[in-house]
Amino acid sequence: MELQKVRPADIEKRSFEIITEILGENQPDPAVEHIVKRVIHTTADFEYAENLFISPDAEKSFAEAIQNGGVIITDTKMALSGISKPALAKFGAEVQCFISDPDVAAEAKEREITRAAVCMEKAAKLNRPLIFALGNAPTALVRVCELVKEGTLKPALVIGVPVGFVNVIESKEMLMETDVPKIVARGRKGGSNVAAAICNAMLYHMGGRRGGPAANSPRP
Amino acid sequence: MELQKVRPADIEKRSFEIITEILGENQPDPAVEHIVKRVIHTTADFEYAENLFISPDAEKSFAEAIQNGGVIITDTKMALSGISKPALAKFGAEVQCFISDPDVAAEAKEREITRAAVCMEKAAKLNRPLIFALGNAPTALVRVCELVKEGTLKPALVIGVPVGFVNVIESKEMLMETDVPKIVARGRKGGSNVAAAICNAMLYHMGGRRGGPAANSPRP
Repeated sequence: MELQKVRPADIEKRSFEIITEILGENQPDPAVEHIVKRVIHTTADFEYAENLFISPDAEKSFAEAIQNGGVIITDTKMALSGISKPALAKFGAEVQCFISDPDVAAEAKEREITRAAVCMEKAAKLNRPLIFALGNAPTALVRVCELVKEGTLKPALVIGVPVGFVNVIESKEMLMETDVPKIVARGRKGGSNVAAAICNAMLYHMGGRRGGPAANSPRP
Repeated sequence: MELQKVRPADIEKRSFEIITEILGENQPDPAVEHIVKRVIHTTADFEYAENLFISPDAEKSFAEAIQNGGVIITDTKMALSGISKPALAKFGAEVQCFISDPDVAAEAKEREITRAAVCMEKAAKLNRPLIFALGNAPTALVRVCELVKEGTLKPALVIGVPVGFVNVIESKEMLMETDVPKIVARGRKGGSNVAAAICNAMLYHMGGRRGGPAANSPRP
């Protein structure tokens, strides 16, 4: 099997071309194709062409939050580490994850809930535009939905893409019932990599990338 | 849709039970089921029940390296961040990723190869047992295979699970042709999350987890 000769700088571009070829007549809506294709690029899983729900206000709300001192809250260090720091820095935005904070661990133990759920409460107290990028813990997503329903949280965007088998589908359907701007991977699939890819797709689309337009920018 | 009532401590156990139920008669080999099921747990993607190749010497070689001052080398900060630090600490092992090192970036630019490939060369110079956990860059996996073929690298284990569309399948088939201990996700799928999950499955199996045996320990 021969290796294809592709320059490092062209690998991503070529990857998106191949994704577009494989999608064939099943291309995503041009308004969100940069998001859908980046998730496929991250997972090589074409099921995401079918299962991603992106509310019409999602990307605009994300961009406004990022440009106005917003912070992305993740439920894992892995998602945090996958989100492009240079892109965030370009807009003076940042990403935070409280999962390893000692106060979070102590409170979770005492209340017998997950640390991820406590993290969401801690984030909700921040007086800044909040973007939740949740790729792991359905308990975190459930807690965000509860806080929204109670009226104590008004997030700029909730990216609800936890993965797994216990209350994962349920947590996503709970998010679907709220009226917040949202991006949801319906079904069991998702992940920290997916959460990060969705954030990066939107950051790059905003111009948060060195070296010109992103490979996944919408075609002219 | 009703939420299932599952205590935080039981979520993972219940998840593995559901995975086992769904796999039905298609259970993985008991010797490696903790690895296969943890990857499915991480991705909710049952294709991994079919596409993971695990060489018979892989886990033994991993464990020996971990217990003898070995280091896990990743090609992304995301994989690094997904590998359990408490589990590694239990064995005095560690994980390193050179992708953001300034010397790596400079050399990659000069030689017009990827930073990930340069990282592998840098790792190969370490005088320690080496485990490569590559979930992102096929160029890194290709470089590892080349160094193995040249005889300048003798890794304890290569986890070859890059994801994507350009030279991904080719790089994995190149690894299959070598005689090093290996774990490979054949085809296009994989990821930093998959690389981390494979490492964690083996670390937990070695007893590297607080609170007793892992949910994914082989059944008695």
